[in-house]
Amino acid sequence: MSKELIFGHQNPDTDAIDAAKAYAYLQTKLGYDVEAVALGELNDETKFVLDYFDEPAPRVISAAKPEVDSVMLVDHNEFQQSVSDIKDVTVTHVVDHHKVGNFETEKPLYMREEPLGCTSTIIYKLFKENNVEVPAKVAGLMLSAIISDTLLLQSPTTTETDRQAVAALAKIANVDYKEYGIKMLKAGTNVDGRSADELVDEDAKSFTMGGKSVRIDQINVVDLQDILKRTDEIKAAMEKASQANGFDLYLVLVTNVLDSNSALIVTGEPKAAAEKAFNGKLDANDVMNLPGVVSRKKQVVPPLTEAME
Amino acid sequence: MSKELIFGHQNPDTDAIDAAKAYAYLQTKLGYDVEAVALGELNDETKFVLDYFDEPAPRVISAAKPEVDSVMLVDHNEFQQSVSDIKDVTVTHVVDHHKVGNFETEKPLYMREEPLGCTSTIIYKLFKENNVEVPAKVAGLMLSAIISDTLLLQSPTTTETDRQAVAALAKIANVDYKEYGIKMLKAGTNVDGRSADELVDEDAKSFTMGGKSVRIDQINVVDLQDILKRTDEIKAAMEKASQANGFDLYLVLVTNVLDSNSALIVTGEPKAAAEKAFNGKLDANDVMNLPGVVSRKKQVVPPLTEAME
Repeated sequence: MSKELIFGHQNPDTDAIDAAKAYAYLQTKLGYDVEAVALGELNDETKFVLDYFDEPAPRVISAAKPEVDSVMLVDHNEFQQSVSDIKDVTVTHVVDHHKVGNFETEKPLYMREEPLGCTSTIIYKLFKENNVEVPAKVAGLMLSAIISDTLLLQSPTTTETDRQAVAALAKIANVDYKEYGIKMLKAGTNVDGRSADELVDEDAKSFTMGGKSVRIDQINVVDLQDILKRTDEIKAAMEKASQANGFDLYLVLVTNVLDSNSALIVTGEPKAAAEKAFNGKLDANDVMNLPGVVSRKKQVVPPLTEAME
Repeated sequence: MSKELIFGHQNPDTDAIDAAKAYAYLQTKLGYDVEAVALGELNDETKFVLDYFDEPAPRVISAAKPEVDSVMLVDHNEFQQSVSDIKDVTVTHVVDHHKVGNFETEKPLYMREEPLGCTSTIIYKLFKENNVEVPAKVAGLMLSAIISDTLLLQSPTTTETDRQAVAALAKIANVDYKEYGIKMLKAGTNVDGRSADELVDEDAKSFTMGGKSVRIDQINVVDLQDILKRTDEIKAAMEKASQANGFDLYLVLVTNVLDSNSALIVTGEPKAAAEKAFNGKLDANDVMNLPGVVSRKKQVVPPLTEAME
């Protein structure tokens, strides 16, 4: 059997990396000659995970065919999310938890899709089905991926199977999953090392509402205070960006990914529209709590549009 | 949970029907509200199987949406092989052993593709993974499907997993799988009830070779004598069809699906070309043995074309 590469999607997140590494461990035990690789640089959360469990980062590849004839995909199936030359190699295995599309093979393959919260949950099932013992480090990787994908089992995609896997894997990895998970998510939403200018712009989108130019940014954190303690600095950056780009109203939605609550910081005018939209009052620092709000697209844009028009 | 339909591909074979029925049994045990249905009339082999195990034939449907919002596919995934309105319903589960293509979903689903000889082998694995006991009748259905798809474990698609499943299922169903399997395959290749005119035409294809009109038919059997005992009648039908349609040379390849051997019956001229093509001699009845020949496309057409030109 010739060597195969295993990888997750482009712009890899923790599941894309950890599922590849865990599946490579399992498949090696089952007799395959495989190597886990990555289709891009690791994010801060994944770096934290590999560092914590003292695991090497996978090699980054940009094409598969120069090295191998066949590959195994984890955490994705759609070709546009895969390696650039995916059509030049044979896909022999897929383990994934997404919708299926833009995927085809010339021959029968092993393909395991399940509607669970995380690919690593499926891979944990595969260890059990094949009676392969999970080493503590590999358990730590899979645990991290499930925590990442389900936001510590809070996301609506979380299933009972994910919960059971987290309990079992935390035991094997010998970590307190909540304490560890918060540290890990915090590492992935590390705002301390980023400037206010970066933070207010990185995920910002522009809208036109009631004839005004409105800018709305979202920053994910595990503690709202990570941003709110820098409110003055953030507001200054928002005003600077508004002057430079002609934004009338600037909203920064700071979202706590752990408890699904947000705080809103507002500069520019009409501020009253923001208050009307969310039926609340901005405090002296131009900040308002928005309990239960997590989606810019579904929970911020529609009421603000209505209030502005 | 609302009701879902489970079905195999159009022009159903034994696996398409039996896998649907077995999966419906399993999913019902797992709490789903499902019904196994068929996308076409049963063939003779499948009728024999259901009769043998005293199981009702599934209802034939031509569209799914009038009855349900979601469906489960077995033994196929490509939409063009599925129910006519497949794009109007949600596919929640797929269990299959074919190549994947022309398949997509809007949401994550359960999809289990494995490169095994038969879908029913995968379904037997699912029974075991879910710790659901296989009733004798359901074992008989799955056993029949594996025998059908693998031609009694002879086909090159057969895997060790299929062999193990056959051994285990035969025990549960309490049948001698070889003895039963030959009866079953024989029922599916029942030539006794068909006229010689039908037999020489049903799977016949026309070719032009060396300026002559050549007709080549193939008849699958489990015992070459089923046809060879009717050689005179078959030859008469071949000559009648040649006169009516202007065929110069008519070949009927009778293939034993159990041992991968064939016999060739030839009428018309030049008969010498058939002898030259297969490096043999026709006997007094214009019959020649062709050991190891099973493929018209790969083993008959090329040498005959060469001999004719």
